[in-house]
Amino acid sequence: MAEFFNVLPPEEARALLLRHVKPLLGADRRPTSDALGRVTAETIYAPHPLPSFRRSTMDGYAVRAADTHGAGESLPAFLRVVGEVEMGRPAGLTLERGEAVIVHTGGMIPPAADAVVQVEHTQLASSDGPMPFEIEVYRSVAAGQNVIQIGEDVPRGEEVLPAGMRLRPQDIGGLLALGITSVAVARQPRVVILATGDEVVPPDAMPGPGQIRDINSYTVAAQAQRAGGLPTVAGIIRDDLDALQAAAAAALAQGDMVVVSAGSSVSIRDMTVQVIDGLGEPGVLLHGVATRPGKPTIVGAVGGKPIIGLPGNPVSAMIQFDMFGVPAIDHLQGMRTAGPRKRTWARLTQNVPSESGREDYVPARLEDTPDGPQVTPIFGKSNLIYTLVRADGMLVVPLNMNGLVAGELVEVRLF
Amino acid sequence: MAEFFNVLPPEEARALLLRHVKPLLGADRRPTSDALGRVTAETIYAPHPLPSFRRSTMDGYAVRAADTHGAGESLPAFLRVVGEVEMGRPAGLTLERGEAVIVHTGGMIPPAADAVVQVEHTQLASSDGPMPFEIEVYRSVAAGQNVIQIGEDVPRGEEVLPAGMRLRPQDIGGLLALGITSVAVARQPRVVILATGDEVVPPDAMPGPGQIRDINSYTVAAQAQRAGGLPTVAGIIRDDLDALQAAAAAALAQGDMVVVSAGSSVSIRDMTVQVIDGLGEPGVLLHGVATRPGKPTIVGAVGGKPIIGLPGNPVSAMIQFDMFGVPAIDHLQGMRTAGPRKRTWARLTQNVPSESGREDYVPARLEDTPDGPQVTPIFGKSNLIYTLVRADGMLVVPLNMNGLVAGELVEVRLF
Repeated sequence: MAEFFNVLPPEEARALLLRHVKPLLGADRRPTSDALGRVTAETIYAPHPLPSFRRSTMDGYAVRAADTHGAGESLPAFLRVVGEVEMGRPAGLTLERGEAVIVHTGGMIPPAADAVVQVEHTQLASSDGPMPFEIEVYRSVAAGQNVIQIGEDVPRGEEVLPAGMRLRPQDIGGLLALGITSVAVARQPRVVILATGDEVVPPDAMPGPGQIRDINSYTVAAQAQRAGGLPTVAGIIRDDLDALQAAAAAALAQGDMVVVSAGSSVSIRDMTVQVIDGLGEPGVLLHGVATRPGKPTIVGAVGGKPIIGLPGNPVSAMIQFDMFGVPAIDHLQGMRTAGPRKRTWARLTQNVPSESGREDYVPARLEDTPDGPQVTPIFGKSNLIYTLVRADGMLVVPLNMNGLVAGELVEVRLF
Repeated sequence: MAEFFNVLPPEEARALLLRHVKPLLGADRRPTSDALGRVTAETIYAPHPLPSFRRSTMDGYAVRAADTHGAGESLPAFLRVVGEVEMGRPAGLTLERGEAVIVHTGGMIPPAADAVVQVEHTQLASSDGPMPFEIEVYRSVAAGQNVIQIGEDVPRGEEVLPAGMRLRPQDIGGLLALGITSVAVARQPRVVILATGDEVVPPDAMPGPGQIRDINSYTVAAQAQRAGGLPTVAGIIRDDLDALQAAAAAALAQGDMVVVSAGSSVSIRDMTVQVIDGLGEPGVLLHGVATRPGKPTIVGAVGGKPIIGLPGNPVSAMIQFDMFGVPAIDHLQGMRTAGPRKRTWARLTQNVPSESGREDYVPARLEDTPDGPQVTPIFGKSNLIYTLVRADGMLVVPLNMNGLVAGELVEVRLF
């Protein structure tokens, strides 16, 4: 045991774990269009400016801005329309003083033009038969008005995405706009999940008296999958030191991360500590987190791979995997930040008591009301998975507070 | 055109669309452990109570509560420990008055016991050698204390999940706890995506002057995928009525939903309206939404299948697909509610001007500060995809407001 603290606050505990987790080496190359949710493994730069030509933001007329100066409702400018820029074609037209060309939204601006007059601010002065014809312009435009300049979205050579970013739809669009049709992404961490407990049977078995079905392996697998990991449910191991030791060693060899759903009794937790320490250095990093539920969590690492021993209670197990397992999966993928996706804020409908010195999580239901979002705690024993099924997320009572007061705006971690 | 309104507020526009969308018939049966993110297609009831036996929530002694009445620090109760409940085994032990049995967290409570005394509230009165031995109990317990009753999590026959719920990790756990190892889920809607525009080339092509790469097909495909749809990018169609008509008819035959990235010019939008109306009844439902950006969106339906014509600007296209496409995919899957997952609240760092009578969306960046979450608008033309790449979400300025004021707590739609 490299470092051992009896009970650490959750932020410190997580930081301690992540210091011992090494991001995975190597990367996958994926088609950009098929990389949603994957994490960039390299910094990406713009190979050319975007847009690569000057584009109109309006339907109207490309003009020399100077030709419209002083134009107004009472004294329009008169311009001669000498051509039309077709969509998708180069705007090769020349444009003399006093001339304009028809341009559509997204169309290219001819070289000599420097602004676009919206069609709504013009009127035909002659019939719009064969060109040239005349228009009256009722508003002056400044140079650059209604025009997107070359490189205005992204200049050539600019960093467009850093390494360690999870790709969203707009990121895929941004890369494809630059012709970047494949991207190096972090490997997906393989998460091997073991369950222990002589009372635990597989979900498809009918439990006898005193037995329960293994659900933690599957809730954790789903959490790992949602975080971008590749989970493997490795099955239920007998409450036996040798059996657990062998299973844990095999899991560590096979996976990038190991999770042991460690059962509820003290003896199994102690055995789990012994097993993790036996796997290599540094072994167990901490044994106990100042949270409720979930205090008896075991956090360790061996050779840069995270190993997490979860409490047997299903609610505790999910909360603790969210606290340690998900950030570890992010870290294995080289992620910079978890992003703002997983929490919200709402007005609390009733008091939530707590004790100072630990972080409390209380399942809660969100509701939209005319006065904004509201959140109501669901009190229940942490053994009851259905308190989480009925919840939208978790109220968090910070470490140094004695509870939350009705009417406060509080953080809700979405689950 | 069944109903035609020039410009509708977004809520009304969405409601109008959803009234014309029919949830998909049929369902897939999936292993529960592999159904994360899928939507239930049936109401699910508990086949047996959970838990199915009385369980201890503590390590300690199962007792008759009456035997501890009046016990305290100064006057402990003396009990005779006559056995131990092994984990995973039936607690067949009998328990006479004045007797107790060792029980572990999660273990079964013997029939004659009705409470558990925590081990921390006891002390050995004799050596704990061979049983029976004696303990002193320093706190009284009430009947039911530290015991989870049969059915306390879920009674037999209770509705555990309604139809139309997207499955989360805890829902998978809840179903498996009841031995429900497969589940009927809604089919994933096939979303066929067409792009139009003579200026548009595929992402792997090098655009000539005046040309741009198709990115809307791919951002929309990623949005559809994230919503649970199965997107197909069907390619770029020439700006030609017959070509678009044929492509749209094929898309409608092949898919459960059709999206046309309709290009930016008025003539292409008009052509798209004509094409959607030609596909069948009711056709175009509305043409224009009171939002910025994204006003020129076309919303329609044919035979219960949604058809959406998106503006060509990439930011507008993404916002409008989020507004109409994602709810339509949810609705096709029979979802009851979109859930609280997609937005948060934060303190605004600067004023955001707007005009009353339309809903404004402004890309924005979230930041955690010691004073809580803050949000800063990113102003930029809606043609620029990188304003969204640099953003975490969208500020929403409601329909009837003239803007947002710095310091307000505002809604941020996560993107």
